Amino acid sequence: MKLIDELRSKYSEITYLHSAAALMAWDMRTYIPPKGAEMRSEVLGYVSTLAFRKAVSEEMGTLLSQLAEGKIEEELTEDEKAMVRVATKAYKRVKAIPPDLYHRFSVLSSKSEKVWERSRNENDFKSIAPYLEEIIDLLREMARLYGYEENPYDALLEGYEEGMTAKKLRKIIEPLKSELIPFTNRILKEGRSPNTEILRGRFSRKAQEKLSRKALKLIGYDFKAGRLDETVHPFTIGIGVNDVRVTTKYSPDEFTPSLFGSIHEGGHAIYEQGLPVSLRDTPLYGACSLGIHESQSRMMENMVGRSMEFLSFFYPQIQKAYPSNFRDVPLGDFYRAINNVKPSLIRIEADEVTYNLHIMVRFELEEALIKGDLKVSDLPEAWNSKMKEYLGIVPQTNTDGVLQDVHWPSGTIGYFPSYMLGNLYAAQMFAKAKEDIPGLEKRIEKGDVLSLVDWLRDNIHSVGRRYEPEKLLKIATGKELDPSYFLNYVMEKYSKIYLI
Amino acid sequence: MKLIDELRSKYSEITYLHSAAALMAWDMRTYIPPKGAEMRSEVLGYVSTLAFRKAVSEEMGTLLSQLAEGKIEEELTEDEKAMVRVATKAYKRVKAIPPDLYHRFSVLSSKSEKVWERSRNENDFKSIAPYLEEIIDLLREMARLYGYEENPYDALLEGYEEGMTAKKLRKIIEPLKSELIPFTNRILKEGRSPNTEILRGRFSRKAQEKLSRKALKLIGYDFKAGRLDETVHPFTIGIGVNDVRVTTKYSPDEFTPSLFGSIHEGGHAIYEQGLPVSLRDTPLYGACSLGIHESQSRMMENMVGRSMEFLSFFYPQIQKAYPSNFRDVPLGDFYRAINNVKPSLIRIEADEVTYNLHIMVRFELEEALIKGDLKVSDLPEAWNSKMKEYLGIVPQTNTDGVLQDVHWPSGTIGYFPSYMLGNLYAAQMFAKAKEDIPGLEKRIEKGDVLSLVDWLRDNIHSVGRRYEPEKLLKIATGKELDPSYFLNYVMEKYSKIYLI
Repeated sequence: MKLIDELRSKYSEITYLHSAAALMAWDMRTYIPPKGAEMRSEVLGYVSTLAFRKAVSEEMGTLLSQLAEGKIEEELTEDEKAMVRVATKAYKRVKAIPPDLYHRFSVLSSKSEKVWERSRNENDFKSIAPYLEEIIDLLREMARLYGYEENPYDALLEGYEEGMTAKKLRKIIEPLKSELIPFTNRILKEGRSPNTEILRGRFSRKAQEKLSRKALKLIGYDFKAGRLDETVHPFTIGIGVNDVRVTTKYSPDEFTPSLFGSIHEGGHAIYEQGLPVSLRDTPLYGACSLGIHESQSRMMENMVGRSMEFLSFFYPQIQKAYPSNFRDVPLGDFYRAINNVKPSLIRIEADEVTYNLHIMVRFELEEALIKGDLKVSDLPEAWNSKMKEYLGIVPQTNTDGVLQDVHWPSGTIGYFPSYMLGNLYAAQMFAKAKEDIPGLEKRIEKGDVLSLVDWLRDNIHSVGRRYEPEKLLKIATGKELDPSYFLNYVMEKYSKIYLI
Repeated sequence: MKLIDELRSKYSEITYLHSAAALMAWDMRTYIPPKGAEMRSEVLGYVSTLAFRKAVSEEMGTLLSQLAEGKIEEELTEDEKAMVRVATKAYKRVKAIPPDLYHRFSVLSSKSEKVWERSRNENDFKSIAPYLEEIIDLLREMARLYGYEENPYDALLEGYEEGMTAKKLRKIIEPLKSELIPFTNRILKEGRSPNTEILRGRFSRKAQEKLSRKALKLIGYDFKAGRLDETVHPFTIGIGVNDVRVTTKYSPDEFTPSLFGSIHEGGHAIYEQGLPVSLRDTPLYGACSLGIHESQSRMMENMVGRSMEFLSFFYPQIQKAYPSNFRDVPLGDFYRAINNVKPSLIRIEADEVTYNLHIMVRFELEEALIKGDLKVSDLPEAWNSKMKEYLGIVPQTNTDGVLQDVHWPSGTIGYFPSYMLGNLYAAQMFAKAKEDIPGLEKRIEKGDVLSLVDWLRDNIHSVGRRYEPEKLLKIATGKELDPSYFLNYVMEKYSKIYLI
């Protein structure tokens, strides 16, 4: 067998095991009977470990170094070179951490996550603090082992967004910060507040599901290669080629969370449905990065779903679904209500304008923790002062402040920036798509989102992991990452809503 | 590690892989999106092969022979000895067949199954005949490799019902045949035909599901350790400890198929829910045999579900669920309608009285094929003449005759008898349970089926695979398998319905 085919064959086994694990994870969050969960955790752990072991086996190491040898590497196609690059990088990253440290970290973070649940509920930062300290210590050690040039934080960031650094983030954040904070303040001072009460009422589950399905179809989600179910925490999961499932949550007194939640997950899902099938059993079959993944969901939810164009087409269907609620509500009122801007304490409730400010707070704090510039014991105070600086509000409790997210207690540091990057990538891609597709906005007004999806298929989805995010963006949009696309988008949209 | 713990550890991996495979199989028949099935087959094949390889690995072989050594075997507990016995038997059976033959057989039977679908639809025996011939040839070869004393058929039967032989079956069949055929004829000649038209109407899916759930709860099915879904072909599947799922099929114009189908699957499921958890990661965690499995479903469906006692309790709930259909139908009429006896061409539509006659037809023919006493080309004629002999009717087409079952085209020979054995085991167990539980029939009349389930838990379910079916029955009922229990049961029940 050729060496590269051996790599494919190894990855095909890994793919199979991941597929089995993904189905088990999906089932665990959807249909598993309660008493079945205990054994399922064991089975899932076992199958995931099998996949992990295959990926880091000595055989894999030997194979990858053979493939990197000059003469052999020369004969590879571009795709094959990329496979070797991605596989080698993943291999080295895992191998950098001794199994013992890995194990300690995983035991610690799973304990810590449980402690956090109680801490958050009881507004008790003190009991989670020692866990956070230990997590930071281990992560600093891991960063050292991964290696970095300037900043240990970069070594962690790399795990979520290849090629990104704290320095680059800071450069991006600067203009965002200097524009978004005064813009938010202007909106609050001068803007007309929308009436969001019109969104409340009684909404049947059945009608909500029907609307979610309609919206998902409009944005190109293929129900023959996926399905929509209900869960407490909505998610998207790729179980295999042509099997990418989404979930949403229906609340009885609002339908917008399930509708826009479905569109959000749908954005993730069409990405996975559009991955390059020809690269199936290779390390290139997957999303480019978390930030790029998030760009697809946010583009669909916010730039499409919450746009005047899309709603011109879709709002009549909403009115038809809930005639007594919306018969007499003009489109403009609905549009303003679902694009309400209000600095909030809680990130996941934030609007498009203030969302990135939440991320900046988290980025600056987590970077300082990893660099050793901030002590865990000073974290609540630092949190509150950053919130004051960025959002102008201060939580009364740690529950509504530093304890709100599971990320840090679960050992996830370096993840938050990908949410912000998703917004920025999305705006830059959307701007390029508008250039490339004549009359895109008019098309969306007629319910044609698929023209945009085709563009995403060609330029983003079908690329898989061939390039790092920076390069992907450069090739797709012709430009380096530039936050002004996002600023232009958000300021134009919200000036129209609030200030004109 | 002690050798026996090594065996446990190996079986725990096999258990995990089987659990993952079972979930994938369940999902494939319930919720998988259509386009996802292609890759799923691959993943399922891969994971099943992993489990298979672990079970037949050289390491396993060495371990089992070490465990069989006198000094080590001596120190094992009874359960541990049984583990070694069951594992060794399974290991030897698989090892008896060279991988090449195994592969040929599996490719052939999966092709043949596809050809059969068309053959049956088109009443075309000729196109399936060469496949059947090759299947018989390979199975004869496999029987030779498995080894047998008198009859090559016994070597195949052993795969489904350990310890059973053609000779024993013949001895059982003799009294059944000589009683059941004249009894059926008497019913047809002298009996009052029930009005089965009362069972037809319009039945909402929702009400059917509710009734099925009620019935499942009554027979002890634990919904916290299982779930009920809808599929075209109903089945029960054990995915793990405390995760045993059932399915049923709702037809719009009859509710009895879904109700009694659910109770049937529920019987299978409470068996699996009651397996001995302490033996989880061992070869003893499983059903004793297919016949014993079938005894549990048939007892629940027929001896409980279709009994006057159960219906005295449950029929009012049926009337409440479908008032316009059954308000004016007396219990007696309903009881007679669901216990209608009528020789039919199709096995799966057969009633309790004639069902075993269908099995006898199949047993005699498949045994003759394997012994070489019957040629495939003579099969349709032989089928029709057996049908005449046993059921007094002859199919007009092979579709309604020899082509009706998937078993032979899929290479499954020796399986049919377990359906009949299930009926016989069930009657013998039920008779013993009535002896052991004071007033069991009165209890069932009050909706208390759980007393019976407790008896089954203690005497059948919790035993797992510790004993072969013959020994299990002997221990549970104190007697060898005796077909007169079934004869007494069926003749008493149906004499009352038809002849008194």
